[in-house]
Amino acid sequence: MKFNEVLENVTTYEAGKPIELVVREYGVNPKDVIKLASNENPYGTSSKVTAKIQELAKNMFVYPDDSMYELKEALGKKFDVDSSNVIIGSGSDQIIEFCVHAKCEKDSKLLMAKTTFAMYEIYGKQTGAKIIKTESHTHDLAQFLALYKEHGADVIFLCLPNNPLGEAVDTKDVYEFLEQIDSETLVVVDGAYQEYAAYKDENKRIVPKDLITKFSNCIYLGTFSKAYALGGMRVGYGIAQPEIIKTLYKLRAPFNITTLTLAAAIEALKDEEFVTACIAKNFEEMTRYEEYAKSRGFEYIPSYTNFITIKMGDKFVSKEVAQKLLEVGIIVRDLTGYGQNAIRITIGTNEQNTKVFSVLDEVLEKLK
Amino acid sequence: MKFNEVLENVTTYEAGKPIELVVREYGVNPKDVIKLASNENPYGTSSKVTAKIQELAKNMFVYPDDSMYELKEALGKKFDVDSSNVIIGSGSDQIIEFCVHAKCEKDSKLLMAKTTFAMYEIYGKQTGAKIIKTESHTHDLAQFLALYKEHGADVIFLCLPNNPLGEAVDTKDVYEFLEQIDSETLVVVDGAYQEYAAYKDENKRIVPKDLITKFSNCIYLGTFSKAYALGGMRVGYGIAQPEIIKTLYKLRAPFNITTLTLAAAIEALKDEEFVTACIAKNFEEMTRYEEYAKSRGFEYIPSYTNFITIKMGDKFVSKEVAQKLLEVGIIVRDLTGYGQNAIRITIGTNEQNTKVFSVLDEVLEKLK
Repeated sequence: MKFNEVLENVTTYEAGKPIELVVREYGVNPKDVIKLASNENPYGTSSKVTAKIQELAKNMFVYPDDSMYELKEALGKKFDVDSSNVIIGSGSDQIIEFCVHAKCEKDSKLLMAKTTFAMYEIYGKQTGAKIIKTESHTHDLAQFLALYKEHGADVIFLCLPNNPLGEAVDTKDVYEFLEQIDSETLVVVDGAYQEYAAYKDENKRIVPKDLITKFSNCIYLGTFSKAYALGGMRVGYGIAQPEIIKTLYKLRAPFNITTLTLAAAIEALKDEEFVTACIAKNFEEMTRYEEYAKSRGFEYIPSYTNFITIKMGDKFVSKEVAQKLLEVGIIVRDLTGYGQNAIRITIGTNEQNTKVFSVLDEVLEKLK
Repeated sequence: MKFNEVLENVTTYEAGKPIELVVREYGVNPKDVIKLASNENPYGTSSKVTAKIQELAKNMFVYPDDSMYELKEALGKKFDVDSSNVIIGSGSDQIIEFCVHAKCEKDSKLLMAKTTFAMYEIYGKQTGAKIIKTESHTHDLAQFLALYKEHGADVIFLCLPNNPLGEAVDTKDVYEFLEQIDSETLVVVDGAYQEYAAYKDENKRIVPKDLITKFSNCIYLGTFSKAYALGGMRVGYGIAQPEIIKTLYKLRAPFNITTLTLAAAIEALKDEEFVTACIAKNFEEMTRYEEYAKSRGFEYIPSYTNFITIKMGDKFVSKEVAQKLLEVGIIVRDLTGYGQNAIRITIGTNEQNTKVFSVLDEVLEKLK
């Protein structure tokens, strides 16, 4: 059967390997698996969220409230914007999809950093759009601007801070860059890890309301999958001017969010204390990774997120390192597919990280 | 900002009104609201499903198993097909979206019944495709064939049984029709209410494996939102030849299904006894609606589903009837938007239906 031609160039996203797979393939006891490949919050679900899910579990025969009234109100309050500025997606991922499909068709142009969140490109290719990337792996706004002036762009993606590398651009530089972008270009500011960046360095903080007030062509994306510890529930949001939100709504399928997910997100927003505590612990543990890397002679990218990218240099092959770790139940992300001889490790709990350091030493010894 | 031109013609789906809205707008006590607008299973969630959700509720910080290994195995076993024949969606709705986006672009053609599931047309318009409908509101395969011969079609939608009208075509007639369709045309057989139709009349049963073995250009869609009582969890599936499944996968975003949803669906499949009991009660209660309609002089469409479409004739306006019911907390679906002076009522529990009959009598009395 013939399908849309544009799909011929589409590859599917390779998600971090799930615990179940490691158990199935390598016979590791599920309790011994340490999953540090998908930048989840290792401190578990907020107990308030768990209690709410348990309370509602018997109501699953009823469709969700598709108006998402309560969650939109809660997000509106948190960010000091109106409900009409908010759209909820199955992860912020789904808002990325809406943005691309709203703006792009064959031969549209998407501008992004060379190494950034893989879904930007995958959604772009679904529409047949052309992907333009900076030469720099990390965000270099001078390169973004030069390419923009040369080619133009229908959508620009800024991942602040950037996944999978971890770097972050200063907000004042972002704003200077945005001044030079035409109001017809949609700029997606992906803040999936903003809670971490803003905690570490106030200069990296993006305030959604400021952003969309100054730049009506921008949309801010946030997620509950990282600091808010709801990766399994699939929920994120976009904040933009109502003109943009209304159009994205045309691409949203009804009931894109489950009842339990809506309730979990509302509850998670009430427990900011939990989130802040998790972020503080994240950066305490991050210094251990930095020290580990230095002491073993590895370069790393200073990170504003809950993961760290460690370069394997010329002595090791990241793919082999990741594979050896996997076989003993430690799941990290190999960045070979991103053109980097590096591994990306989510910052785990104190205990998990201690084990990672010791097992990594053993693995490196064997691969020498 | 300019967006894709095709979106100008896209309207958003109007979901059945949620209980929360009736509470907010009309001050009805939530416990008194009877929601019979979205064809949910009124007998509640299977207790096995509830228990499983409660057990897993603390694990929400981890992303779902994106391979969906277990649920695909369970569906494969149920339908005697291979995992490679299965794709899971956020409702079967999302598989419809994948099908349309895989086959259609501007000026592609979609063929469907005049009154059928609204999302076929909405997804079609997102791609700029042309929508071709039969003159008959209900499925008339002779009309489908004539239109197919005249215009061709990239995708044909058969809703068996049909939502929102409730009629069903005999499977042997469907197969005869399919014999005459080119293998390049994707035929979507939407079986969202198949469990009901097959229970009522064996002649309406579609066996997915038979369908896709005989016709490699067909995809069968099933859902957990109706008989399986998981409307709030958002999960459905498509069954087709691997060639089709692989292409649809290119349009699937990673982690499109939550962890709790996957677990709930697996559990629901284990509790077929619950499903069968619910379906049996559904048809017992359906006869009460038929008798009610007859005794009040209303025509109705014999239904193979868990809802009934009652025509309001020339004495009443369906929009007014639905509105009056809404104001006292009974939510039904007005079909004016589908060009029908009719209301569609989900078959509720015995108690709910008794109340519907008495309140409807009062409402009709007032509107006389």
